[in-house]
Amino acid sequence: MTSPIRIAIAGHGNLGRGVESAIARNPDMQLVGIYTRRPPAQVQPLTAGVPVLGMDDLAGHAGQIDVLILCGGSKSDLPEQGPQLAALFNTVDSFDTHARIPEYFAAVDAPARANQKTALISAGWDPGMFSINRVLGEALLPEGATYTFWGKGLSQGHSDAIRRVPGVAGGVQYTLPVEAAVERVRSGERPQLSTREKHRRDCYVVLQEGADADAVRRAIVTMPHYFDEYDTTVNFISAEELRRDHGAMPHGGFVIRSGSTSAENAQVIEYGLKLGSNPEFTSSVLVAYARAVHRLHAQGHYGAKTVFDVAPGLLSPKSAEQLRAEAL
Amino acid sequence: MTSPIRIAIAGHGNLGRGVESAIARNPDMQLVGIYTRRPPAQVQPLTAGVPVLGMDDLAGHAGQIDVLILCGGSKSDLPEQGPQLAALFNTVDSFDTHARIPEYFAAVDAPARANQKTALISAGWDPGMFSINRVLGEALLPEGATYTFWGKGLSQGHSDAIRRVPGVAGGVQYTLPVEAAVERVRSGERPQLSTREKHRRDCYVVLQEGADADAVRRAIVTMPHYFDEYDTTVNFISAEELRRDHGAMPHGGFVIRSGSTSAENAQVIEYGLKLGSNPEFTSSVLVAYARAVHRLHAQGHYGAKTVFDVAPGLLSPKSAEQLRAEAL
Repeated sequence: MTSPIRIAIAGHGNLGRGVESAIARNPDMQLVGIYTRRPPAQVQPLTAGVPVLGMDDLAGHAGQIDVLILCGGSKSDLPEQGPQLAALFNTVDSFDTHARIPEYFAAVDAPARANQKTALISAGWDPGMFSINRVLGEALLPEGATYTFWGKGLSQGHSDAIRRVPGVAGGVQYTLPVEAAVERVRSGERPQLSTREKHRRDCYVVLQEGADADAVRRAIVTMPHYFDEYDTTVNFISAEELRRDHGAMPHGGFVIRSGSTSAENAQVIEYGLKLGSNPEFTSSVLVAYARAVHRLHAQGHYGAKTVFDVAPGLLSPKSAEQLRAEAL
Repeated sequence: MTSPIRIAIAGHGNLGRGVESAIARNPDMQLVGIYTRRPPAQVQPLTAGVPVLGMDDLAGHAGQIDVLILCGGSKSDLPEQGPQLAALFNTVDSFDTHARIPEYFAAVDAPARANQKTALISAGWDPGMFSINRVLGEALLPEGATYTFWGKGLSQGHSDAIRRVPGVAGGVQYTLPVEAAVERVRSGERPQLSTREKHRRDCYVVLQEGADADAVRRAIVTMPHYFDEYDTTVNFISAEELRRDHGAMPHGGFVIRSGSTSAENAQVIEYGLKLGSNPEFTSSVLVAYARAVHRLHAQGHYGAKTVFDVAPGLLSPKSAEQLRAEAL
């Protein structure tokens, strides 16, 4: 029995708690520390006996951590922490601002290379597993079209947007794929689909006392960029219903590649996720990639990496020999 | 523009023709030769101008071929050709006798290593893309269960078996997943399923003149191993209907991983294929892996490999930089 992979967590929000939960399901890993910007006494770890420490203590613990999983947000935490911590640790993160990935990759790659560390960026499901399926789909069926549908899922950004509307006391927004569009794609048709044809948006809103429901509805459905290009329904509910029925964070979706391999034959590849908890699934992906990062580092592969650079076998606790015998 | 990858094909059955068709869809590849055991004049290539040569000519052409795609069968062709040709060429094959993969891997690995060649074995969809999804599913959701369903698809082995029944003039067999079982698994239930509960078998049979339909039906549905553990229906059709309605080779199926990431939250991952042509899709996978083999060889990775050893980005004609910008 080799010694377990020593994992530490930087940041203890939904993602950090999900990583704790995932590590408990991977016997070849050990959680050695949770690092936080909050006063450590305020953080309640799920894992018995794990030390909770301040972010400032991290640098001094480099020798005791095999892989550090960065659980901060993509907007302000990761652009700062990613490059800094990749100089000291092997890291995994879920940087998900798609348009800024090349810039973030470069910012992490330089310090990681200079210090012989391995830093896997943008793991999760999108970017992450969905990205892998977009690339594989196109490589296997070069003549064809790729479709990504999201939902049914709670969108954090759109929920925040409706909560900023005057008259709104609380609310959530779900993104849903339009079933008719999904069925057309699954059938092999390869339609051109507008934004409105692909997804719709469902809002559940608690009004402030005395607020004008019609005005709130109008303000939501016409909101530029967030809602105006979609068919949006607004449902008014009580604060009690919001708490009782909308506390979970489900998500999911599909990547579909529809292509032809000859004049006669069409082929459809579909990868789908139905997630009871979006952050817990993302965390599970981060933890599996932490295993791969540990191995890549041991093999001397330094610098920033993405899911495209990682062979599937590196994610599994099983040996290559065992995988060939059992899973091929 | 770099020069195209020079591909050759060994064997020109359904798979070899599919490889031709796939190469025509990958502009970074060039088909440089088709090698056959038949008299070359009997082989009609789809690709204008490509030389058709005897298998004996292969050894003399080692310097002109970057990757040789082996399109023979797993029963007798590949066990002999795989190890022999991996000593001379980088190879890709679709060896699919699951139980004998470890043995075949070892037989190919030794000559490939000794001669600094790269040999990817057992590519296709199962083994192949389904195997990748079994490994990823288990790595991402270690607490859970994996299900593989096949169909609707034409099974070559079972079609051969019914054609050997006395009184049968012709016929085909389709394997179908039992929809109720698929729905239970998709719902996150994680049932224990027997062989009979997972798949059923549909046969379309043409009787010989004067044959006893009931006796043929009984002989099929009670056939040990092939049919006795399944619910099997036998439909009698005319030779004309067989030719008209059952000439295609569709297949497909799903790999579903159903797991938990905490006491509260269930997650379901599903990978599905709906294939108009089983051999053409397998061929498309072989061709994408030929690209990866060419790159692995250039990087000095010698010996036998499987799909578990190949990072997704290596299958794509796009650069790592382009993939990060476009597909992540």
